[in-house]
Amino acid sequence: MVTGEAQNQALRPLKDRLAILSDVRAASAVLGWDQQTYMPPGGVAARAEQLATLGRLAHEMLVSDETGTLLDAAGDPDPGSEDAAIVRLARRDYERATKLPARLVAETSRASSLAQPAWEESRAASDWSLFAPHLEKILELQRETAGYLGYEDHPYDALLDLYEPQAKTAWLHGVFEELRAALVPMIREISALPDEDRSRPLYGSYDEAEQERFGREVISAFGYDWTRGRQDRAVHPFCTVFGGPGDVRITTRFDPGWLSPALFATFHEAGHATYEQNVDPSYARTPLAGGVSMGVHESQSRLWENLVGRSRAFWSFYYPGLQKTFPETLGAVNPEAFYRAINEVRPSEIRVEADELTYNLHILLRFELELDLLEGNLSASELPAAWNARMEEYLGVTPENDAKGVLQDVHWAAGLFGYFPTYTIGNVLAVQLYEAAVEAHPDIPEEIGRGEFGALRGWLRENVHRHGSRYDPDELIERATGRPPDATPYLSYLKAKFGDLYGL
Amino acid sequence: MVTGEAQNQALRPLKDRLAILSDVRAASAVLGWDQQTYMPPGGVAARAEQLATLGRLAHEMLVSDETGTLLDAAGDPDPGSEDAAIVRLARRDYERATKLPARLVAETSRASSLAQPAWEESRAASDWSLFAPHLEKILELQRETAGYLGYEDHPYDALLDLYEPQAKTAWLHGVFEELRAALVPMIREISALPDEDRSRPLYGSYDEAEQERFGREVISAFGYDWTRGRQDRAVHPFCTVFGGPGDVRITTRFDPGWLSPALFATFHEAGHATYEQNVDPSYARTPLAGGVSMGVHESQSRLWENLVGRSRAFWSFYYPGLQKTFPETLGAVNPEAFYRAINEVRPSEIRVEADELTYNLHILLRFELELDLLEGNLSASELPAAWNARMEEYLGVTPENDAKGVLQDVHWAAGLFGYFPTYTIGNVLAVQLYEAAVEAHPDIPEEIGRGEFGALRGWLRENVHRHGSRYDPDELIERATGRPPDATPYLSYLKAKFGDLYGL
Repeated sequence: MVTGEAQNQALRPLKDRLAILSDVRAASAVLGWDQQTYMPPGGVAARAEQLATLGRLAHEMLVSDETGTLLDAAGDPDPGSEDAAIVRLARRDYERATKLPARLVAETSRASSLAQPAWEESRAASDWSLFAPHLEKILELQRETAGYLGYEDHPYDALLDLYEPQAKTAWLHGVFEELRAALVPMIREISALPDEDRSRPLYGSYDEAEQERFGREVISAFGYDWTRGRQDRAVHPFCTVFGGPGDVRITTRFDPGWLSPALFATFHEAGHATYEQNVDPSYARTPLAGGVSMGVHESQSRLWENLVGRSRAFWSFYYPGLQKTFPETLGAVNPEAFYRAINEVRPSEIRVEADELTYNLHILLRFELELDLLEGNLSASELPAAWNARMEEYLGVTPENDAKGVLQDVHWAAGLFGYFPTYTIGNVLAVQLYEAAVEAHPDIPEEIGRGEFGALRGWLRENVHRHGSRYDPDELIERATGRPPDATPYLSYLKAKFGDLYGL
Repeated sequence: MVTGEAQNQALRPLKDRLAILSDVRAASAVLGWDQQTYMPPGGVAARAEQLATLGRLAHEMLVSDETGTLLDAAGDPDPGSEDAAIVRLARRDYERATKLPARLVAETSRASSLAQPAWEESRAASDWSLFAPHLEKILELQRETAGYLGYEDHPYDALLDLYEPQAKTAWLHGVFEELRAALVPMIREISALPDEDRSRPLYGSYDEAEQERFGREVISAFGYDWTRGRQDRAVHPFCTVFGGPGDVRITTRFDPGWLSPALFATFHEAGHATYEQNVDPSYARTPLAGGVSMGVHESQSRLWENLVGRSRAFWSFYYPGLQKTFPETLGAVNPEAFYRAINEVRPSEIRVEADELTYNLHILLRFELELDLLEGNLSASELPAAWNARMEEYLGVTPENDAKGVLQDVHWAAGLFGYFPTYTIGNVLAVQLYEAAVEAHPDIPEEIGRGEFGALRGWLRENVHRHGSRYDPDELIERATGRPPDATPYLSYLKAKFGDLYGL
């Protein structure tokens, strides 16, 4: 083991190479951002070529013999040091990329390129048969990918690991079982109550510019730093990072007849963005830069969107201002009615429109179906029936058609198996982290009630954000909260919040 | 010589490599556009790294042995064919890049990185001595660069060729002599007239949104295609292209107290942009894509800015609309007064604010000084005095200080010797091309008077734009106009227009 300055010098060539790789990926991110915000329609074809070229250059640079040689030469830096984390992450990245034969990478890319337009067509016609053969092909390639990547217990572990390093299928199974056992009866109980149409006040005339101004005011208070970011409009809200904490952008979209989408998407994306803005700046252009996993990232967006942005405390401070901004639509709506509106539980067929409570069952269903598909217990042609049966079982809802059911998400067409569970992991971790923050600073809820977020933000920065990807998710959560990822706090939170809201 | 399909196949590997190179350069252009339009301040450092990395990757790809081997294997395609032009341009690009030793490229890059902040400081303090040593260094490197690139008659030819392929110093000398002989006396005569302050109406309250709307209306009529471009705001107006005619963007800036800058910059950049939008789409991702030289590009921007946009015919159609848009400032200004306002001749110290007539003398002065510096007839320390003497001789103006004199342009700090003359080449070619277009379609002036630009646009597209970089500038001009580049039409145009305006 080499230590200190000598080690630093030995790693220099590897770090230089990783920095160049980071630059190329950041350039791709800029091109991707532009594609979704400002690019004119005529740019589509050339942009696809540019992104393909940058992707290929980054891939070639990563899997090259030179990278392998530099990784071999890197040895074993001080365990626990930043250098050790850099080498560990670079090796993981390299090994993942080199384990897959070029033929499989090309076939996967080709299959999802073909599957996406087929999925669009299939959804437009609500005709599953157009997409089914593509899904079969993708599944076959995903199984093969899992085989090459390797796993101990379950092939799904190999895929999940791409988005949530070290997460295990067995653990997720346990989490989802707990969620199912608790939530399915709760949702049934709520569905049996008379329909009050609580969310009605959220529909009406909501001026876009005012929505934008209000959202900006709130996320500025959350701590989003506009000198290191910006908000633009895009069809799908997202957060993107260009190589370090100095340029972290978000997008949103506005519906002039519906308050919720832009408002909560803005809080959500700002949660992702403050995570990225608070990563240690010295990690820029290294594998330590950026959030550690999809799940931990999602915990930050959900924390600000739901635990803060849909709480009574938050709106006790912000509601008067919102009411003044939209006197026509909200003038006669009292704070409690507004709080109930933004927390209405209404089982529905579409995941992205789901409320905080039913959302997880949409994920549970996808997780279970992905396992069945991957294990070969279910064929692509049987999927729509299986989908509808579980929708009925978990949510008491039968999709109007396949377009609004099994065909609603692009993920499978894009080859993203193992991705959906990270949404629920995010929900789970959000509450675990929030409670640890409140344990350390018991006045956080009061502060939120005064429109102040300094203690919460400070705790998150110190315990989560600044570390970037230095620790794997489990280690990060254990360091931050004193225990491994655990769904118990999340379940208690849901029971308390929705028990109160619906008098259960 | 191989022909047809066989040749096409033989060139495939070379073309693939050139396409990738084009993608990387296009990605750099996107990053550069973003840097000047939307990037938050926090993005500066990371963006510099990203651009440096992409630039280095493109350079390495270009000078690699693999490119050399592919160029050797390309042989000699059918003379006059598109393939022949691709090979010729790729070889020129490769040879230029490989002729320069890596040490010289690095020293040049380093020298201009150091010179630019020194120039800023020097200009801020109006203290030439801060910048002089940097200019000496840059000159030394430019001389060395010219030596490596090679030339027949004059080292300046080698530098000029970088921006205006095949243009010769001797020819430029002749053009500038003609201009000097004709323009210096004209300008003296105009300066001796009583000052009427003709441009006064252009100052006043000009709403930015209305300026923008009017500018967009005009350039839409010029033929700028918004589905393949967009206009954004930037400190310095520019036009940029992302790999082909499908995405060609322009920028401008607005002064709410002065009509001219945004208006004419918008026409100017739209001229550059329509050139790029009309290049044969099949040239995308090849060396044939994009305008052929700085001078030919400038001919298109000047043509739309000056020959169309500052003409009586144009404003006979557009002035009523402009007057209605700005009734407060223009309501009492008659069309002829407005025409005289936008064509006021006023010798001044600043190039970028110069009118159509005096502009060329600013360039003449720089051209002559660049030659003296390169030949060693003038040292950096003697430059300010030489500058001021020529300003007095040509324009009857002595700069208030060096900041407004010899330090006004960034070009020399950036190492751009041989670049300035392309502005005047642009003016010269604009008139030569316009007159050829009118010869082919004598109704063009009348059409312009009806706000129609189809015949002019069609002629330019057919004879200039669509060819991209297929022909070198001289050949392109000769094909389009029937004779080589020639300043005579430009001089006649200036004499007629300004003779009329000032009763000379």
